[in-house]
Amino acid sequence: MNNVFVIGVGLIGGSLCLDIKKIFPDIKIHGIDVSEETLDLAIKLNLIDYKSNFKELYKGDLIFIATPVDIANNIIIDVLDIINEKTLVIDFGSTKSNICNKVTDHKNRRNYLASHPIAGTEFSGPESAFSGLFNDKTIILCDIEKTDQKLLKTAEDIFRSINMNIRYMDSLSHDKHIAYVSHLSHISSFMLGKTVMDKEKNENNIFDMAGSGFESTVRLAKSSPDMWTPIFKLNKDNIVESLDEYIMNLKNFKSLIQNDDFTQLKNQMKKTNYIKNILKGLN
Amino acid sequence: MNNVFVIGVGLIGGSLCLDIKKIFPDIKIHGIDVSEETLDLAIKLNLIDYKSNFKELYKGDLIFIATPVDIANNIIIDVLDIINEKTLVIDFGSTKSNICNKVTDHKNRRNYLASHPIAGTEFSGPESAFSGLFNDKTIILCDIEKTDQKLLKTAEDIFRSINMNIRYMDSLSHDKHIAYVSHLSHISSFMLGKTVMDKEKNENNIFDMAGSGFESTVRLAKSSPDMWTPIFKLNKDNIVESLDEYIMNLKNFKSLIQNDDFTQLKNQMKKTNYIKNILKGLN
Repeated sequence: MNNVFVIGVGLIGGSLCLDIKKIFPDIKIHGIDVSEETLDLAIKLNLIDYKSNFKELYKGDLIFIATPVDIANNIIIDVLDIINEKTLVIDFGSTKSNICNKVTDHKNRRNYLASHPIAGTEFSGPESAFSGLFNDKTIILCDIEKTDQKLLKTAEDIFRSINMNIRYMDSLSHDKHIAYVSHLSHISSFMLGKTVMDKEKNENNIFDMAGSGFESTVRLAKSSPDMWTPIFKLNKDNIVESLDEYIMNLKNFKSLIQNDDFTQLKNQMKKTNYIKNILKGLN
Repeated sequence: MNNVFVIGVGLIGGSLCLDIKKIFPDIKIHGIDVSEETLDLAIKLNLIDYKSNFKELYKGDLIFIATPVDIANNIIIDVLDIINEKTLVIDFGSTKSNICNKVTDHKNRRNYLASHPIAGTEFSGPESAFSGLFNDKTIILCDIEKTDQKLLKTAEDIFRSINMNIRYMDSLSHDKHIAYVSHLSHISSFMLGKTVMDKEKNENNIFDMAGSGFESTVRLAKSSPDMWTPIFKLNKDNIVESLDEYIMNLKNFKSLIQNDDFTQLKNQMKKTNYIKNILKGLN
């Protein structure tokens, strides 16, 4: 392993660079990004060794795509066109079936592995990157039977060596589950932020009361619109379905309050408390 | 200051005991709770010095009520009936106008101060109490013109000495603002938990993907139904209003996705990102 290319040197790509350097101290990391400023910063922060471009990709032993999902979808064919026969290409996007469909008939399909690391913060850009972002986090690998088994093994070894927990899922199921467990959380948080800001013209009221649960629940509303808009676009159907169910549950909860059915309300909350048991061990 | 009574020795009451002991090392703390087991545990954990009961309240220099809001509302008259003329009674509930209405004509109204500390965790009971829960947190004092000014000063001194930031608000405004900033967060979180659990029969999927924002957004769904049911009941109108606006925003966001209006969707998220600036300084 001599040359790694990271396309998109933001929070995810940048943090990965730091981890990759730890496990392969002699490796050369080449960064590609639409923003020259981002690349300059990534060099200054020692995330990458060289600024690079698509023409150089044929040199890569390993290529990580850590761009917003729409860009990953737009460039994946170009990347697969240019690589050598031993290159492993891994993308990190939060939606998977679309990109998997896109490459399905490509001659280099077996050089590609669809992945989704369940890791991140509400911050973005190379300045947010840190070593350890992936430590003890889940990475979901999709449709692995379509990847060359030797390359897959290489990928698994890398993810295990940065202490990630590997799970396997087909790309359609991934998109369905992630709509509920991740994408819906972001929308609920964005809309909570919007509702409160629309109402509270006096920002001090928000600030003073934010410690009462608002701050943590609204955290995801700080997330990058450039990253999330394409996710909502590419996982549209699953997200609309999850939103319908969320809205239905909220309406039902509202009716229970309006009808003074506080016994039923309490029962519903008690049942939902079971989430404690499911999440146990995450902290 | 010799005798403090804490009615309701849970997370809030218990944590307060720890702080009070630090600033008044010689004070005697008397605990009152519906649960004998809670009181035994509170003694074992050194939160309180004595188990007590309502008949003893006349001895109190200071009485804190840290029960669920429905219980605070039910007992406030009995407490005010029994106190001596110098006793300061402070309640800590998350809704304020109801209890303020209740005491409005009481002969000892001026001994009572309505407060709401913006502090807590998703855990409950004396075993969750810890010193420092109130450190650098906001406490909202309501309708202070109705409290004796000397007693008010005593309360302010205590809250400042445990490093709380005092804000003043009338009780009606408090309930309106807190519905948006706090109560709505809890409902959005409870319903997120319900929606995801209803859909995901395989708990491993939830667990594996929870790091993607779900875990923090759903945190409040671990909260105590015994505490929150009466809050939703006592702040019904404001909460229903906030829920209507939240549901409207969610529906609108869904329509933007369905209509492929991703420019508008991104704009809305960008505007909501402003929450960063409002919350700056909270961390």
